Amino acid sequence: MKFGYFDDGNREYVITTPFTPYPWINYLGCEQFFSLISHTGGGYSFYQDARLRRLTRYRYNNIPLDEGGRCFYLKDGEDVWSPSFRPMKKELSFYECRHGLGYTKISGARGGLRAEQLFFVPLGFHGEVIQLKLANETEQAKTLSLFSFLEFCLWDAQDDQTNFQRNLSTGEVEVQGSVIYHKTEYRERRNHYAFYSVNAELAGFDTDRESFLGLYNGLHEPQVVLAGRSNNSLASGWSPIASHHLQVELAPGQSKTLIFILGYVENPKDEKWASPGVINKQRAKEMIARFETEAQVEEALRELKAYWDSLLRKYQVASGDEKLDRMVNIWNPYQCMVTFNMSRSASYFESGIGRGMGFRDSNQDLLGFVHQVPQRARQRILDIASTQFEDGSAYHQYQPLTKRGNHAIGSGFNDDPLWLIVGTAAYIKETGDFSILDEEVPFDSDPSNTASLFEHLKRSYYHVVNNLGPHGLPLIGRADWNDCLNLNCFSEEPGESFQTTGPSEGPVAESVFIAGLFVYAAHDFIELCRRRGLESLAAEAEQQRANVAEAVMEHGWDGQWFLRAYDAFGQKVGSKECAEGQIFIEPQGFCVMAGLGVEDGRAEQALDSTARLLETEHGIVLHTPAYTKYYTNLGEISSYPPGYKENAGIFCHNNPWVIIAETVLGRGERAFELYKKICPAYREEISELHRLEPYVYAQMIAGRDAVNFGQAKNSWLTGTAAWNYAAISQAILGIKPDFDGLRIDPCIPPQWDGFQIQREFRGAVYSIQVKNPNHVSKGVAQIRVDGREIAGNLLPLFTEGVHEVEVILG
Amino acid sequence: MKFGYFDDGNREYVITTPFTPYPWINYLGCEQFFSLISHTGGGYSFYQDARLRRLTRYRYNNIPLDEGGRCFYLKDGEDVWSPSFRPMKKELSFYECRHGLGYTKISGARGGLRAEQLFFVPLGFHGEVIQLKLANETEQAKTLSLFSFLEFCLWDAQDDQTNFQRNLSTGEVEVQGSVIYHKTEYRERRNHYAFYSVNAELAGFDTDRESFLGLYNGLHEPQVVLAGRSNNSLASGWSPIASHHLQVELAPGQSKTLIFILGYVENPKDEKWASPGVINKQRAKEMIARFETEAQVEEALRELKAYWDSLLRKYQVASGDEKLDRMVNIWNPYQCMVTFNMSRSASYFESGIGRGMGFRDSNQDLLGFVHQVPQRARQRILDIASTQFEDGSAYHQYQPLTKRGNHAIGSGFNDDPLWLIVGTAAYIKETGDFSILDEEVPFDSDPSNTASLFEHLKRSYYHVVNNLGPHGLPLIGRADWNDCLNLNCFSEEPGESFQTTGPSEGPVAESVFIAGLFVYAAHDFIELCRRRGLESLAAEAEQQRANVAEAVMEHGWDGQWFLRAYDAFGQKVGSKECAEGQIFIEPQGFCVMAGLGVEDGRAEQALDSTARLLETEHGIVLHTPAYTKYYTNLGEISSYPPGYKENAGIFCHNNPWVIIAETVLGRGERAFELYKKICPAYREEISELHRLEPYVYAQMIAGRDAVNFGQAKNSWLTGTAAWNYAAISQAILGIKPDFDGLRIDPCIPPQWDGFQIQREFRGAVYSIQVKNPNHVSKGVAQIRVDGREIAGNLLPLFTEGVHEVEVILG
Repeated sequence: MKFGYFDDGNREYVITTPFTPYPWINYLGCEQFFSLISHTGGGYSFYQDARLRRLTRYRYNNIPLDEGGRCFYLKDGEDVWSPSFRPMKKELSFYECRHGLGYTKISGARGGLRAEQLFFVPLGFHGEVIQLKLANETEQAKTLSLFSFLEFCLWDAQDDQTNFQRNLSTGEVEVQGSVIYHKTEYRERRNHYAFYSVNAELAGFDTDRESFLGLYNGLHEPQVVLAGRSNNSLASGWSPIASHHLQVELAPGQSKTLIFILGYVENPKDEKWASPGVINKQRAKEMIARFETEAQVEEALRELKAYWDSLLRKYQVASGDEKLDRMVNIWNPYQCMVTFNMSRSASYFESGIGRGMGFRDSNQDLLGFVHQVPQRARQRILDIASTQFEDGSAYHQYQPLTKRGNHAIGSGFNDDPLWLIVGTAAYIKETGDFSILDEEVPFDSDPSNTASLFEHLKRSYYHVVNNLGPHGLPLIGRADWNDCLNLNCFSEEPGESFQTTGPSEGPVAESVFIAGLFVYAAHDFIELCRRRGLESLAAEAEQQRANVAEAVMEHGWDGQWFLRAYDAFGQKVGSKECAEGQIFIEPQGFCVMAGLGVEDGRAEQALDSTARLLETEHGIVLHTPAYTKYYTNLGEISSYPPGYKENAGIFCHNNPWVIIAETVLGRGERAFELYKKICPAYREEISELHRLEPYVYAQMIAGRDAVNFGQAKNSWLTGTAAWNYAAISQAILGIKPDFDGLRIDPCIPPQWDGFQIQREFRGAVYSIQVKNPNHVSKGVAQIRVDGREIAGNLLPLFTEGVHEVEVILG
Repeated sequence: MKFGYFDDGNREYVITTPFTPYPWINYLGCEQFFSLISHTGGGYSFYQDARLRRLTRYRYNNIPLDEGGRCFYLKDGEDVWSPSFRPMKKELSFYECRHGLGYTKISGARGGLRAEQLFFVPLGFHGEVIQLKLANETEQAKTLSLFSFLEFCLWDAQDDQTNFQRNLSTGEVEVQGSVIYHKTEYRERRNHYAFYSVNAELAGFDTDRESFLGLYNGLHEPQVVLAGRSNNSLASGWSPIASHHLQVELAPGQSKTLIFILGYVENPKDEKWASPGVINKQRAKEMIARFETEAQVEEALRELKAYWDSLLRKYQVASGDEKLDRMVNIWNPYQCMVTFNMSRSASYFESGIGRGMGFRDSNQDLLGFVHQVPQRARQRILDIASTQFEDGSAYHQYQPLTKRGNHAIGSGFNDDPLWLIVGTAAYIKETGDFSILDEEVPFDSDPSNTASLFEHLKRSYYHVVNNLGPHGLPLIGRADWNDCLNLNCFSEEPGESFQTTGPSEGPVAESVFIAGLFVYAAHDFIELCRRRGLESLAAEAEQQRANVAEAVMEHGWDGQWFLRAYDAFGQKVGSKECAEGQIFIEPQGFCVMAGLGVEDGRAEQALDSTARLLETEHGIVLHTPAYTKYYTNLGEISSYPPGYKENAGIFCHNNPWVIIAETVLGRGERAFELYKKICPAYREEISELHRLEPYVYAQMIAGRDAVNFGQAKNSWLTGTAAWNYAAISQAILGIKPDFDGLRIDPCIPPQWDGFQIQREFRGAVYSIQVKNPNHVSKGVAQIRVDGREIAGNLLPLFTEGVHEVEVILG
């Protein structure tokens, strides 16, 4: 069952009912000011940091769900309704929400009145613009009251929801003309305020929540709206809000447009005040002046669309499969950019006050956006590398504002360092910018202790080499990619961190996954050594890679698949010998991606075992059988109910590893089949089961052991986006950036006739036509570039121009 | 305007409308299991720790305010209503909430159906019992549906409201018979679960919030109730709730009683499971069996009332002023006990996930409950003292579960150590138990490093002596009693702690308040030295006291009042020389309490200045003029909007210091006048302004500089309760525990004719009749005990029996 449809021409998903199975959201903003917005206008706004500069209040997991955010009330005679449906929830004669790239349009109509709302954050703007167009579609004149509403957060979202003994006394506002200013704590240490403006004269306003709603009332019964008259309340403590009241006269057929702005302003310390106690509003007024007319709004929206076009046109496919095209061309790269902007901070599942940036998350996210914003990717790599220690280990997380490592979690996640190699290689392959390797980068954010980025990569590599366990496999440390597989921590107390608390007895647990990742990353590391003329280092690294590869084949193979790990007692994890958790997805994907077992058939065996034992109609579960009880020697993985999250859920992040692995074996049919299983556009028809947005990936789909098998959770901010983008764009469609240019190596279902791809790469545009006359899965028979055949499958580099590339598979 | 009335006979406050100006709450439980309950049934329950063992979810500062908690829906034909008014908010033909001591009764009637709910936590019971009596008051038979509802919190209240990427996957329940079991995380590290039972057969149940409410519905529109049929949903992840559905048949005039229990169970590790995956319910069943009949409930309620009677009868007054009597006999000691149980953790202003126990808070709270539960007070003192350092300084806070000091805040609040002397002295005076001084008590919770409690007191005393500043006044450290006066920390960044962050330049700021407290505490410390035969220590301490007293008189006097402090630059704070904050309340109260300036008239001058400059119709503000801007050299005090909290709010905690000071000067009229200004029972008539409960003290009443002058905030958990209890019971009514017995020293308005007091003290009952034939304020002319006149005003000690005491003032 669907709740909307894709409008690919407009790059929008169109939701046609307020009753989606969960709030379906979008993100506004792509620089410093961001908003989350659901299909009924829920969500919140913040500047830079979702925890520390929260502009508006939002209550997660609330009753009613998704209440809050920005909303409007229309009082048309005695009828009060909301054009976003919520909070009045009156039946609408028309409802539509269009989530576009960086903007959302929500329209509602009732009683012959139509209201169209456009929400977006203009480029270079520290605020959200809301354009509201009201149209009288009747033959009678209408006189109506419009009330806006939003609730301010007192900046620190964590403090805002806990520290009431202070916060209920601090709220302060100013009202001037049609602008409501929120200035809590501005009188003391803050130099920033928020404002909510409208470009029309007010009939009244409210800034005190209780005055507006009535003390015990919900958002569906605001006393001011029901009475049709604002109280002109000035909040002092308690809960400051902003509500404008506008009287609107509409002749038959007439429409009027109003422009609201929720803005954020920082003032220099010596320009804070206009007069004692009165904030300097100059900057707010300048912001408001930028969007006084519909034409200004339209122009800014055009600019925003052009911005997204410039990002997305780097890779455009025409495959003949509209679901595939819309994912590759629009939604998957869009999600990658949102994930870049947000890391894991703010979604409808991430509360914005939790985790910092992950070392490994951020490196993997790069794979999805490096081609869109290579300069920002470059900076991100340098930021990440700065949190590495001299011994090659790394902080597991760092804070985006300070860019410093997070001491509370520390280091010891032994896969982390390797991802820096993967991310850096991806950047160089996209840009050809080897100079990044020569950048001086601090250890542990200490500017007095630096080394080249290349040296950092070397430390990463040798951190594994220097930390091998009894079987010659990499020690796992606190955990590897699977944060919930905690082999060295034996936690028995609720509330403890599964990774970092408690005695870490006998830290000899080893990870076959890290081994696979090591061998995989070694390819690029060794290549980089060679290109820097470090032949002896390259040779040594080759030997290290061979040693680990051999250890995998000797101690990491379970007979029909790759083992997952050895625990702290040397017992196997992910083996047929285990009672539960006999086979895991991660080593099957990554070992084969690394080429392990490809030559002797074990790779094929591993993927066949994966298909037989782990694959379901909704994707590949993380392991099987699910853990039915808690194992202290395994940790958090066994703490989830069976089928959820890491305990045998379909943890989407690692599904593309198997997809890519299938392409390593040339099995294009299998690869694409797996791709479709978790790809949201292909799951649109089962939205009532999937529940979450059909236009973006979710981190997890409940596995077959779960009560709610097939139900997705945690959409938007997940490494799933980047890896699936890599899987489809590089492994299946086969357009692979390499150090010396684009390599063409598709692996597709053999029945495909071919496809077209437009790829912007290092200044040039490659217009690539892939033809599959012999209906093979893999193998390039011939490539012609600008009419001339080339040898091999590496396209020549150009610095400009459009170049026609014809690829014949066979 | 009133919203209810006191029913002193039943020791209840009776609320007669759901529309109180703010939720008016009560506390259930007095040992390990606690619930907060508002007049419409809002609130939540927890076991021992409001953060870590939260049973039910509650959303602070919500829209609608105070939604959540436990509620019932009655579906009588098509009419659906709630007997606590919320959440259906249907008009009731009768509504009444009776907040009693440890129980609350809420009754509602509509359409001829009457529902009476009794909520309480029986003694020794780890659960809340809800007895619901339904009565058909019509002449027709009724068939109705009753639905219960409550929402489970996933135990850690902080995690519950932030960590959705995990928590939405973990929720698990079981249903057996009429009992719903909440067992999230029980399969792993927890050994505890919750249950919600009813003693009747179910027509259905729900445990999944969405199934019960409908995804986007509020509590006022639960789809199951509106449809009249449960879904028998079993929660898996998302939000587990508990809802029973009962079919009730009522003949005309018939009534039926149902008993619900929300319980908490811990199982030993080896008794967790009944069978794989099925929790062991034995202990829950035993709890349920205890309250299967109305008679069992009535008996438990009787026991609870007897318990409270045993506590309150320690001090009962009959003054002829019913407001005074109800505060002294019922509500003030009740609030003191609640504050003892909760410290500052869980109220409608404290979210239960914030602060630990305060060193100074807990010592001061002792003054209010030591006579009620001396044994628990003894343990509390030893717990507090264990967090002291060897140099006499102390952790500012400690965690109630671990009883260890809180490193995040640390020490350096230089008044803290002195309160240990004050608290210990109060305990000994009440009990005569000098043996507590010989208890071996650790430093910094280190059992291998201990000293006698007396040695701790000595370290406390000498911590001041060893930390005197340039004027010979005590260094203030991070802050003194006024946490918001931060003289050594110059914070300019939002989010920093005002006390503990940033460079603490030139920590030479001095506190006249600490000086006053030192001189005050010295009286008792020196006396304890003497009683231990430590004459030379006593003499030395006398000298130290004299030195500090001299410093106060020389450097701490501003001409008409006591200075507040010297800042880090040696500038005066609380002086006529200051632009703002010229006079502060704290040193006026405490210096006079300590006897400073009593002989030379400066005490009188100080209190007269207080009256002239700080006193308002709603109490005494903290300082004046309020700070209109932020001063980095003063800190948080200047961060609040003028008139709120520490920035010239009426901070009720310190008003009784002035009250007591007035009695030191013998001005009983003034003392009682000040007492009445902030005393809730005397403010009942202005409840629409005061807003908060008229039966308990609030921490703060907005000062005259505030927009909402006279409006109270932060009721229940405040040192205000203890100090006002000390002021009225000891200073005004004059029944003062002393080391050798009860001392009689009233200071009353001269027009009073007298009063009667029943006082249980060290095993005996003193029935005290105070007569004021000459209409004096102060001075005892004659005392007769059991008919015999005694010399002086110290009553002889008895170990048992009732003893008649006649006191003649004059």
